Amino acid sequence: MERKEFEEAAFEAGIKLGALFHQFLGTPVSEKNVEILEKAIESCVMLQPYVVDAEVKISREKLKKVSSFGYTSLMPEMLHARVKVRVGMAEVSAVLEWNEEMNYPLMRLER
Amino acid sequence: MERKEFEEAAFEAGIKLGALFHQFLGTPVSEKNVEILEKAIESCVMLQPYVVDAEVKISREKLKKVSSFGYTSLMPEMLHARVKVRVGMAEVSAVLEWNEEMNYPLMRLER
Amino acid sequence: MERKEFEEAAFEAGIKLGALFHQFLGTPVSEKNVEILEKAIESCVMLQPYVVDAEVKISREKLKKVSSFGYTSLMPEMLHARVKVRVGMAEVSAVLEWNEEMNYPLMRLER
Amino acid sequence: MERKEFEEAAFEAGIKLGALFHQFLGTPVSEKNVEILEKAIESCVMLQPYVVDAEVKISREKLKKVSSFGYTSLMPEMLHARVKVRVGMAEVSAVLEWNEEMNYPLMRLER
Repeated sequence: MERKEFEEAAFEAGIKLGALFHQFLGTPVSEKNVEILEKAIESCVMLQPYVVDAEVKISREKLKKVSSFGYTSLMPEMLHARVKVRVGMAEVSAVLEWNEEMNYPLMRLER
Repeated sequence: MERKEFEEAAFEAGIKLGALFHQFLGTPVSEKNVEILEKAIESCVMLQPYVVDAEVKISREKLKKVSSFGYTSLMPEMLHARVKVRVGMAEVSAVLEWNEEMNYPLMRLER
Repeated sequence: MERKEFEEAAFEAGIKLGALFHQFLGTPVSEKNVEILEKAIESCVMLQPYVVDAEVKISREKLKKVSSFGYTSLMPEMLHARVKVRVGMAEVSAVLEWNEEMNYPLMRLER
Repeated sequence: MERKEFEEAAFEAGIKLGALFHQFLGTPVSEKNVEILEKAIESCVMLQPYVVDAEVKISREKLKKVSSFGYTSLMPEMLHARVKVRVGMAEVSAVLEWNEEMNYPLMRLER
């Protein structure tokens, strides 16, 4: 029983990170709107079923490398997110984080 | 000369509306986050080249028909946007608005 | 051990469905390109880690209600997907399917 | 009269390029599915109003720098697209192309 709840919670956490990444990648962003964009993304995740907490950070450091128009598109290497979901008694936390060695926006369960 | 500027401005206005629609469609939304989402979308449009003004409205009326989880995905019929761009001396305003008869999110230049 | 693998597999399955939904929602579609779009979406899912099978169906029935321009945007109620992932010995299958009563694109693990 | 048609055509061309970029950015891609993805994107553009031709190219060269999972997300610097639209007697061609110096996915009318 409890085991199934953990699987469900892991499944739901995966949905949220996959959704967030593919919904917002490409969004125009710069230092001017990075805060409101983070808050808006968090607000979207918080609406989804079973979510108890969401935290989204866009790297200010990586935002410095903008285009000659003064902004850039939101890219995988800029994005850090943590989502916590609860299904019944099972609580699961998962993270999306750029992995430099893998050249990949890795999503993983936190143990 | 001026004529080319109007064509460029019309082109740029089209880019912004096409971008906005396809970037944010599907975003989780409810009465809880509709305001911050509108502001975040506006902030994204304002970053883009040649934009002088942007206004985004999500229909509160249509937001009432949510799922049993209390939110919905941002749909074409909920979205109203106006963008004003200027290229040189040419200023152009364009609108994205759901057209009920055409069953279509119509984008048009305002004359 | 095996238990962790099932949780990982469930997590990975969730990522794929969340990603697919939010990446492709809004895509222009009609009877003319529905097949190539299904195949392209499947090909994208198949590239992702741990996926062993992917199946995407867009409802021909719901595609009939197009706009006056002869196509529509891909909407949640049109989309059916099944993805199978394997992590170590754990294989998990998950489905995305429109749920009419919930007015919601429900994603669930198949037991 | 003709002038307005050129403005409309430029506007429509802008919509298509903005839409294409923000719809498909982030899509999982590798050498395995690059052809079907190009064809699918073209098929989507061809459905949209006033389009008479569409051509989408994803750089094979840039696809070589994949993640350790053997694929990558479709990024701005990989994407080349040309769209031709006709409104009345006015035909306009526009291009989306990565501009290395500007570090920007530049969209422009072709004269």
